[in-house]
Parts: sequence; structure tokens; C-alpha cells
Amino acid sequence: MSMPTYKVIGTRPVRHDGADKVTGRAIYGADVQLAGMLHGYVLRSPHAHARILRIDTGKAQAFPGVMAVVTADDFPRTPDRIVDLGEGETPLSCVRGNMLARGKVLYRGHAIAAVAAVNMHVAEEAASLIEVDYEPLACALTAPDAMRADAPVIHGSLRMKELGAPTDTPGNVAEHFRHVKGDIEKGFAEADLIVEREFDTATVHQGYIEPQNATALWNNDGRVLIWCSTQGAFVVRDVTACVLDLPVSQVKVTPTEIGGGFGGKIPVYLEPVAAMLSKKTGRPVKIVMSRKDVFEATGPTPGSHMKVKIGARKDGRITAAQAYLAFEAGAYPGAMVGPAGMTVFAAYDLEHVTIDGYDVVVNKPSTAAYRAPGAPNAAFATESVVDELAQKLGIDPIEFRLKNAAKEGTRRADGPKFRKIGCVEVLEAMKNSPHYKTPLQGPNRGRGVALGFWFNVGLPSSCTISVNSDGTVNLVEGSTDIGGTRTSIAMQAAEVLGIAAEAVQPTVVDTDSVGFTAVTGGSRTTFATGWAAYEAAQDVMRQLKERAAKLWETEAAGVEAAGGVFRSGDRSMSFAELAARLGETGGPVVGRGAVNPRGVGGSFAGSIADVEVDPETGKTTILRFTCVQDAGKAIHPSYVEGQMQGGSVQGIGWALNEEYWMSEQGAMMNSSLLDYRMPTSLDLPMIETCIVEVPNPGHPFGVRGVGEANIVPPAAAVANAVCHAAGVRLFRLPMNPPAIMEALWKPGGKSSQLVPRNP
Amino acid sequence: MSMPTYKVIGTRPVRHDGADKVTGRAIYGADVQLAGMLHGYVLRSPHAHARILRIDTGKAQAFPGVMAVVTADDFPRTPDRIVDLGEGETPLSCVRGNMLARGKVLYRGHAIAAVAAVNMHVAEEAASLIEVDYEPLACALTAPDAMRADAPVIHGSLRMKELGAPTDTPGNVAEHFRHVKGDIEKGFAEADLIVEREFDTATVHQGYIEPQNATALWNNDGRVLIWCSTQGAFVVRDVTACVLDLPVSQVKVTPTEIGGGFGGKIPVYLEPVAAMLSKKTGRPVKIVMSRKDVFEATGPTPGSHMKVKIGARKDGRITAAQAYLAFEAGAYPGAMVGPAGMTVFAAYDLEHVTIDGYDVVVNKPSTAAYRAPGAPNAAFATESVVDELAQKLGIDPIEFRLKNAAKEGTRRADGPKFRKIGCVEVLEAMKNSPHYKTPLQGPNRGRGVALGFWFNVGLPSSCTISVNSDGTVNLVEGSTDIGGTRTSIAMQAAEVLGIAAEAVQPTVVDTDSVGFTAVTGGSRTTFATGWAAYEAAQDVMRQLKERAAKLWETEAAGVEAAGGVFRSGDRSMSFAELAARLGETGGPVVGRGAVNPRGVGGSFAGSIADVEVDPETGKTTILRFTCVQDAGKAIHPSYVEGQMQGGSVQGIGWALNEEYWMSEQGAMMNSSLLDYRMPTSLDLPMIETCIVEVPNPGHPFGVRGVGEANIVPPAAAVANAVCHAAGVRLFRLPMNPPAIMEALWKPGGKSSQLVPRNP
Repeated sequence: MSMPTYKVIGTRPVRHDGADKVTGRAIYGADVQLAGMLHGYVLRSPHAHARILRIDTGKAQAFPGVMAVVTADDFPRTPDRIVDLGEGETPLSCVRGNMLARGKVLYRGHAIAAVAAVNMHVAEEAASLIEVDYEPLACALTAPDAMRADAPVIHGSLRMKELGAPTDTPGNVAEHFRHVKGDIEKGFAEADLIVEREFDTATVHQGYIEPQNATALWNNDGRVLIWCSTQGAFVVRDVTACVLDLPVSQVKVTPTEIGGGFGGKIPVYLEPVAAMLSKKTGRPVKIVMSRKDVFEATGPTPGSHMKVKIGARKDGRITAAQAYLAFEAGAYPGAMVGPAGMTVFAAYDLEHVTIDGYDVVVNKPSTAAYRAPGAPNAAFATESVVDELAQKLGIDPIEFRLKNAAKEGTRRADGPKFRKIGCVEVLEAMKNSPHYKTPLQGPNRGRGVALGFWFNVGLPSSCTISVNSDGTVNLVEGSTDIGGTRTSIAMQAAEVLGIAAEAVQPTVVDTDSVGFTAVTGGSRTTFATGWAAYEAAQDVMRQLKERAAKLWETEAAGVEAAGGVFRSGDRSMSFAELAARLGETGGPVVGRGAVNPRGVGGSFAGSIADVEVDPETGKTTILRFTCVQDAGKAIHPSYVEGQMQGGSVQGIGWALNEEYWMSEQGAMMNSSLLDYRMPTSLDLPMIETCIVEVPNPGHPFGVRGVGEANIVPPAAAVANAVCHAAGVRLFRLPMNPPAIMEALWKPGGKSSQLVPRNP
Repeated sequence: MSMPTYKVIGTRPVRHDGADKVTGRAIYGADVQLAGMLHGYVLRSPHAHARILRIDTGKAQAFPGVMAVVTADDFPRTPDRIVDLGEGETPLSCVRGNMLARGKVLYRGHAIAAVAAVNMHVAEEAASLIEVDYEPLACALTAPDAMRADAPVIHGSLRMKELGAPTDTPGNVAEHFRHVKGDIEKGFAEADLIVEREFDTATVHQGYIEPQNATALWNNDGRVLIWCSTQGAFVVRDVTACVLDLPVSQVKVTPTEIGGGFGGKIPVYLEPVAAMLSKKTGRPVKIVMSRKDVFEATGPTPGSHMKVKIGARKDGRITAAQAYLAFEAGAYPGAMVGPAGMTVFAAYDLEHVTIDGYDVVVNKPSTAAYRAPGAPNAAFATESVVDELAQKLGIDPIEFRLKNAAKEGTRRADGPKFRKIGCVEVLEAMKNSPHYKTPLQGPNRGRGVALGFWFNVGLPSSCTISVNSDGTVNLVEGSTDIGGTRTSIAMQAAEVLGIAAEAVQPTVVDTDSVGFTAVTGGSRTTFATGWAAYEAAQDVMRQLKERAAKLWETEAAGVEAAGGVFRSGDRSMSFAELAARLGETGGPVVGRGAVNPRGVGGSFAGSIADVEVDPETGKTTILRFTCVQDAGKAIHPSYVEGQMQGGSVQGIGWALNEEYWMSEQGAMMNSSLLDYRMPTSLDLPMIETCIVEVPNPGHPFGVRGVGEANIVPPAAAVANAVCHAAGVRLFRLPMNPPAIMEALWKPGGKSSQLVPRNP
């Protein structure tokens, strides 16, 4: 089947919001200024786990310049229930509890009270006057710790969901699920070689540039107006309404520009608090987090403890795979081990599989999505074991994966069967890449590869398109633009309309001004909102054909359109010519599109990493790095490449440096961007990219979301490269210099094999 | 035919923007604040007519705090052409010339240059340093003056359009048109009584509370962003684009709330100037007019000189009517005499008619629309003559009008034939009103009646509607809400959807976020944008029926909906229940509607005025006043009544007080609201209202626009009342105390008939 030819899709126009972003004119949440606006400050727990005996806000309320103080007691106490807020189902009590602690604090940084004052300094000073009496409790900081029989119980009321059904098991495990396919014992019995390893990963933060913020005005007419930086304005609307016990239409959210999110700007922390402060004061209230707040009180990715056991025959065919995944939920039950269980073996076509997942509450911030949540952890484990198997069997690691690669029709252990996917094509592209074809030379150097998978979630999106008399169109959408989606969505409309990408003016509007649109997350925006734009553009084209038919006094069915030209018989008219004549043919033309795709495709990505390990310091240098990913169809290749590079870099950060350094008392000791070490441009080579295009049969242009799969394999690829460079395999992330030195010098380590840097 | 029953239409819900308006939270143009914003000031001509010999901006540019100065020379000099900017066709040169004078100033207040500075005081101070050398010229201030052979020629290049065709006639007449029906000579020959009178009306201003303003940012990406108070954001977009020689889509206009307009906020004065200052400075620039600027440099209604001659038989049947209408255009050719010619005899079913109209440029501000532009002038003349005829023939003035009233099928002299109209019904309602049935008693008192007509213009409007999960909907529209149209439009959507008016959240958005929508003017918004909302709601209902059918596993054609309940067989579901289930039936539901109605109906209004004239001072007191108007179908009766009261009060202002007092040099001597006397609540009784409903066959709910017809008859009704009170008929507006005293005491005056107030 030949690929369709496109005029706009696949080109690289300048993004519509580019000028505003590079010149500083784009308005972010912290830029919001309203008449009479107050500033809020949130008092946070100094303890990782403690009972709140008393909160006295008297002195704070009396402090000059303070207009209001709120605690959890100020919020409606509606009965608990499960709410689906577009990011999975969550008990309302967890959302509320995480927003402002009630009875207990469950992590250091847990919000306790908030102050609104004439400026942020007064608010901060007043917050320090709030008296809180705590009874400190022992804390559990990792999944293995929290799963111990003698672990402190974090939630008295938590009932474990054991294999889908609630049990009375006490403790900190919120859920245990198991995916079974085939007969795992039979599978291992068929293996010639079995590798079983345990892995740990640290808590890692998304590290978006812009801290969370929210400005709220509880208006005189009873509506709550919110301005904030969020991945999903409608999620903020619905969560805030839920917490405040209002109908969703009583909340209006105006999304500002966003300085990164990576999943971490889906949860709602500040908005209902700012709203309640506004209700008490009658004035708008703005709250902006500090970087310390961001680290300590938003949602990082789970630390995890995993065991992966894989058996293979000598010919390289995997016979069985088993995984044990214990993921930190953070302070409230989480959802991240779920996708870890769905992706841990998703890249392989396996007959016998068992996967056990445990969602474990610990005294750390409640985890949130972080770019393919759960999958990088799981891939670190799986892809390390696969590498070891290939190595021990003497098979090229890409060939080994090709022998076992998932393909159309492969049924995953968690149930679904793949439609057309690009796993094999990604592996082939890795194999044929300039990078992989170039031998790696030099001492202390190694090359690693790894493979990863992530979904496209579908979820609802809405768009409208209006035609301008100058032959351009305005496109209205509700998707936060993080990585250039204004343009990638506009391009899909432009393709249908036969006009240039620049002739589409996309606008991201508030929740009052567009149909429901779910979060920018799950690699869904270019995919699903792009599809909504496609539908809106089709709706426009149907109407424009009618208009052309009217002018030509013919039937609309006889009007054809291609490449921006309408034709009927030997008559033709350009899009712009027709757009100029709408007034005389019935008035404005407005199209609308709304979609809710289900059962859509996913994307595979592969990483190739060349590293050099310094035997004297343990420092690992990334020499060369290539990301290969199946984009289905790359709408705007530059932004696909940008996603691939960004995900790769974040994965490298996970691999080598990033982690929450926790004290035994549960305090994060490195909650600044000086001490929490993310890779900078000086740490990295240019990340090479190779876009594979295996069109998604579940999208009109074949798009696969590309935002996430690229972060899945890098940590494993780097771990495999470090192993091949240094001769030691590390089983814990990050593989920072101390960890590498420890591995090199431990009994049985391979320090002697390394070549000194300065011989 | 029985009237349909409605659940929402005809009720009186609280307006959606009410709380914001009464608590001061609504954002008006002058409230706009942007980072780095500069303030602009416009230098204006002190001469009514002068040649500009030299402009030297050097000192102003050098003044500390000044960032830029612009004159007409800074704007593109694209060739002149006729542009249709939604308010009629105008030469681009006139729009440009009125915005910033080039070569000559044509009226006092004419803009010459503009300064952008760090604050408005610096800008004003710097503007005073701009050196302009003028060669003053003689000026012509009224139509008769300007039509004299020896009048100064205001536009050297003006070529008169004589009866539709350009001629070489020099002078100040821009256009002469003539409408002829039947044989006027024959008609007058059949008359038993002929009355012919000359009338004059003064220049009158709309007197909106909020002065004009504009903030503009010429953005780094080349787009011009504008925030302003306007009756039509798309008009501002298109005019600004035209003046700046940009495609319309390069300009984005965000309309703020508006503090009144009445037609005067359709023209564009400041926006392109602010934009050019922004281009020069790279920063946003705000310009706000003073009240003096508003009076001297925006668009008042034309002063006019008219002759009306009507002949009637003894039985009260009019045999012929002739009008001569010479209207001041102001400094640039205007359009107001056009509708005067179309309405001057529109209330009557006449056989023989001739109407001559003259559009005359004078050295006063370029006129703009003011609520039924041209019609109050014309009605003052016609209805005075009709009153005199009725009086002389001894026929009750309402009965006289009923004998001659226009009805379905009546063809106007300007061509169009009336569809179903409510002229007779309005007259009947006047006759049967409590007011008219109550005899007027007391000395120096008189009662007058008058009749008036105004159109519904159609023009394009667009809406979209999105369904919320809580059973409410969001409605997006592009119509400036002046008199409660958010609500009157929302109610029409609510009626279709079967939900409450409060369950519709209407939002007026910027020009990027909704389909083209013409001005709020021409009594069109509730009519046309309401219709667009009706269409969008129908689009929603079609989709919702499909969703219900999906849930019920039946065909959409079998699903019925009424009163917010969907039914198929014995199954039923409320709107809110279905709205909560969109996720499972295909995703969001968005509806769109766009209309461009043509050949639509109009509205008749009648005034009954009781006055008392103080014989010692000439002051006229309005004792009682009733407005009767055909609303077709009153969507929100309170707002219909509000329009009727507002129009009546403005008409009373025209009648008794309002006028531009001009010096011989063309300076307005009363350019403040202290000296320009508008009626206040202390001057007026409660205006009684009577809504007549003769459904408009050209609208789905029968709506007729009601914003304007109510201002047409009051001046004539008051004049007739004054005549009956004081025994003297006045032929010039305003009929202020000096004018009345002069009439009373002139030779042949009736001062002796009046009863002294303090006998």
C-alpha cells in the first residue's frame, strides 16, 4: 500500500505560538494580574508522617495584611465517592486529602493551610504564625519498606484491592493485580537459559520549568473563575467543581501558556484552595508554588522495586516472562503500576507470561503521571534482562529482540491484541541506523540498546473552525499546547481544507468556549484533537461545496475539492475565492468536530546509547545517542523529533542522575534544581532521531502519539551500555558516579578491566 | 393562528452578565492593562476647516517619556477603493482621512497626530508640543449653508452622485437620490387639504456613558491584537486590517464590555492609530478618549433640513406625500439620509410619493449611526405634518393614521413590499392604551402621538454550543452585548434545547474564536444571532437524538424531544441525563449555527406624550409617556421594555434639549455632559410600555429587532403635544425653553392663550 501524498502534513512550518514564546509575550499562570488580586501562600508539613492534633490560625488571621486563612475544615464535606476526572478513577477523598491535609499529614510538604494576603511576603510570614501541633509517626519511604509487616500503616481506612476484589488485608498495599497469559511454569521449563534480576528505581520528578500556579476568583454570580497552567483545563474545571461541590458549569478555567508538564500538571493542587480563599475575601487570589513546593508537594513518578525473570531457548526465542512490580503510590493510592504492568512485556510476542503489580502507599508526595508513567521503570528491568540474555546467548541484541518482537495480532498479557504496530520496523530502523552501523571504538566504552512501548489514549476532544473572508480559517481548541500541538492540529485541518498551515489560526480557549476536551497527556493531543480538527474541517468542506454549488447553480454532490481548489465540470474556484463569497451564499461557514477515539494504536521507540565510563570517578558520558520511534505519520517532523529528543534526555536523566535524596525522616534533601541534577545541554550530545512511519489504522492520517514512548527505553539502553563499557551491570537507577564506583570496586567488580583515563 | 407556547421565551430570567455589571467586575476597554503598556494621546484640530501647511513632531518626539509619534504619513498609502465594512460601503480614503487628517482638517476635533508615552499626562503634554501650521478656511456647518453656491468646498475631489450616477457637479453634495412611486402631481390634485412645512433638527450625540478607547499590540509575529469597546469586533478587525493593509486574519479583536453605543461605536477611530504606535514602539498602546473628544471627534447623528408636503382628502385618506431631505453628512460623505428616505413615509400605505434625499458634507464631525439613523429626523417632519392634517380635518390622530397605515403588501416608495407587519396593531394598541383612554386635564397641557418604523437588518451571525456533563451548555457568540443580548440569545437556545435560560452560559469571544458576526446594530442581534443560536441548538439536538438512539439501540429518527425530555416509545431521558452520558456514546457534542438573513421584517413603534409647557420659562415637562412597539415575539420582555424606555428617553432628549451648540467658526461650545443636556431620571416620568406581538414570519420565533423603532416617534409626539399644549407648532429640534418662548412671543404667537403657572 502506497502512502498517501500530503501537501501540509510532513512539512515543518513555524509554530503559531513561536514568536510569543521566544519574545516573552506569552502569558503564563504566574503572569496573571487581576484588579484587587491577593496573594496566597500554602503552609506545608515539616513531617513525613504525623497526626495533626491542633491547628490554630488565630495569629495568622490577625496579622496585618492578611485577608483570609483556610484549612480543610473550610471545604464541603460531601460523602466520599469514586470520581472519574479524565485521568483515571480516584476516590474524591484522596483528591481532597492531598489538597489540604485532614487529621494526618502523609508526606513532608503536605498542604495544611493557606493564607491570602496583600502580597506574597505577608502571606508567607503569616503562614509561619499558624500553630500546628503534630504527633510525629514512623514513616515508610519505599515500596519494600511499606510492605513489611511491621511498617507504619499510612491510611487507617485503606482496604487492599487483591486481584481486583477488595479484601480486609491491612497495610499499605492499595492494590494487587495479576496478568496471566499461558502457563508460566511450562514456559520456563522450555527455556535453555533463565535470567532473573531485581531492580530498583528512585523517585524522579518531571522537572518542568514552570512551577504550578493558580489564580481564582469566586465571582459575585456564584461562578468560580480560574486561570492556571494545566495540561487539561477541563480536568481542573471538573476536579475543582467536585471538591467545591459545584456543578461543573459553575467553574470556568482559562488555561494560560504552560512551561512544561510531562503529566505532572494534570493533578489539581492549588485551584480549589485559591477559590476558597477568594470566596472568603471576595477578591481574586493567586498562588504560585516555589521550586521546593514543586519537588515536595506535587506528583513525581513512583520509585519502584521490580523482579523480572525471562527464559529463552538457545535460538533466542523467549519462552516465558515473569514480572513482580511494586510501585510507590506516594501518599495516596496511585495508578502508575497499572501501565507498568501493561507495558513491561508489551514489546514482545510471548506465549507464557505472569505479571504481578502492587500499588504501595508510602510517605512521599502522591505520585502523578510522568511521560509514559510506569513504563520506563518496567523497561529498565525488562530490557536489562533481555540484554543479559542476548549477551549470554551470543545474539546481537537487536536480532534477539526481532526474534521476539510484538506484531499485529500479538495479544498482550493484560488482554488487548495489537492492531497494526511498528515494533519490527523500529527494530529494523535501529539496526540500519548510521549509529548502529558505526562500530564503537575506544576504551571504557560501551553500546546499549533498548526497546519501549507506550499507548495512545483516546479520550474526548472538540474543535470548531470558522472561515475568514481572506481565505484563512480560525481553529478553536481546548488542548493545552505543550509541544507544538497548536501547529500539529492546525496542519491536519489545513490538509483537509487544502490551505497552508499558516492559513489556520489556532487558539486554545477557556472551558466556556469549546466543547469538552480531555488532558494533553497520554500522547493524545496531536492524535485526538487533531482528529477533531480533521472532522471540523470536513464539516467546513461539506458546507463550502454547497456554497460552490450555489454559485455554480449545480448540486453539491457534483463539486469536488482537492488541494484547495473546488471543481465542478470545467469550473474551478480556490478556497480563498470561495471564502470571499460566503456573504452572498448564505453567510458564515463554521465547522465542528468532536471525537472520543477508543481502541487506538500505540508507539514503539528504541534507544541506542554509546557511553564512556570514567574509571576514576564513575562518571558516565553519553557519547552518542539515537532515538528511533514509530510516529505512525509524523504531522510536523520537527516536533516529533523534539519529543524524541526530549524524552531521550529525560530518560538519560533517570539513568544517570535524577533522584529524590530522602532523609530517614522522609525529608527530600535536594529539593532545588542545583541539587536535583537534571541533564543540561552541556551533559549531552545532539540526540539523533529516526522517525519510523507505520500508519495507525485508527486515525484518519495514521497518527500515533509520540510524546511518551521515547522516554521508555533510554534508561535501559544506558544501563546496557554502561554494562558493556564497565563490565558491571547496575540494577538501580540512577547509575550515578558513586553507584558505578561501588559496583566497580565491590568484591567481584570489574575495576581492573577498565583502562585508566590518564594512563 | 394560535401563538406557539414557549417555556423560556417570554420569561424574565436574570441576565447572565448582571452580577459583573452591578458589582463593577465587568472589564471595559479603559480597564485593559498589559505588561509594558504605553498610553496614547491624539492631537486634534482647533479649526473646523483649514489647510495643514506643516506638521513638526520633533519637539514632541524629544520630550522625555515619549516613545513614538504618528501622523497620517506613517500609514500605508494603498489606492482608494470602496470597502464594505458591514456598516455600508465607504471609500477607504474617508475611513483613513477621518482617522488622521491628511492635507486638510475638516472639522474641529479632527485627529492630526498621536503620541505614545509612558503615561497619559506625558503623552498629552508632548502632543501640545507638536507644531502644526494651518491656513484657516471658511466653513459650512449646516446642509443649507453647505449647499449654497458660494459655500466653501470641503472636499476638492468630491463628485456628487446625482440620482445614482456620478456627475461633475462641484460642491458639498455627495449624493442626491430620489424615490418615486405613482404620480405626485396627480396625488396632490386629489387632495382636499395640503400641508407643507420645513423642519430642521440639530446635531445630536448618542451620549453613551463610556468614551471610545482602544488598546493595540502589534505583536512580534506580525499580528495586530486589539482590545476595545465596540459594537462589532469583526468590523474593527476588518476596518483596521484595511487601513493597515493587512489580511483580516492578521488582526485579532477582543471586545471588552461596552458602556453604550447606539450606533456610535460602530466606526473605528483609535484602533489603527494605537496599532501604529505599537508598531513603532514594540509595546502595547492604550488610547482613551475624553468626553470632549467623544463629542468633537466621534460620529453624532446628522443635523437635517427637511420639507414635507402631504395632501389628504376630507375623509382622512392621504393622496400624496413628498419629502425633501437634506442631511448633514459631517466631514465625510455619510449614509444617514438613505434610511431617512426609506422611512420617512414607511408607516403609510401611499399611492403617490416622491422623496428626494441629499447627503451634504459640512465642517462637523463625520456622522455615524445613532439608533434608527435618519428616521427620527424624518418622523419629526412627517408626523408633525400628519398631526396638523388630522387636526385640521378634525380626525383623531390615531384614527387618521389607521386610515393610512402600512400593512402586509404595502409597497414603499423606495421599492420593497412589506411582509407581515404590526403597524395597525401598534396603532390599535395605542388607541386602547390606558394612557390614551385617560383624558388629559389641566391648563397648558397637551397630548401628542406619533408613529415610527425601523428595519431589522439581517447580516451574518455565528454561534457554537457545547454540552456540559451537568446538563448545561456553553454558548459562544460574537455579538457585543449592549442591552442584554447574551440572555436573549441564550434563551432562544434554551427554548430549542428544552432547558432553563440559566442552564445556558453565553460568552462573547474574540474574532479568532467564533465565526464572522456583524455588528450589534440595526436591531439585529436578538434577531440574527438569536437565530444562529437557534440553529446551533438544533444541531445539538440532532446529535443528542442520535446519542439517545444509540443508548436505546434504536433509530434516531424515532427519537422525539420536547421540553427537555427525549422519548422513544415508552423510554424517556432528560436532557441532563443524556448530557451525562456523552462519553459513552461517542464523545462531546458541539453544535454550530451560522445565518445571514435577508429580506427580514421591521418594527413599528408609537409614542403617546402628555406635556405641560411653562408659559413663563418655556420649559416643557413630560407628564406621561407611553411607548407601544411591535416586538414580533418578545424573547425577554424586560429587555424589550428597557429598549422601549431607552429609545423613548433619547427621543425626548432630541425633542427638548439635546443639540451641538456651534460657534460660527465651527467650534462646539457645549462639549461636556454638563452643557450638553441629556434627560436624567429627574426630568422624566416612568416610561410606560406596551409590547405588541405580531410575529415576524422571517424568524423562527417571530422576533423583530426592537432596539431602534422606539426612538423614531418621540420627538414628533412631543412636538405635537407641545403644539396642543401651547398652541404653537415648532419646526425645529430641540424645542428648548428659548425656542418655545420665541414661538410663543413672536408675532402671531399664542402666548396669550397659555395660563400663567402661578396665576
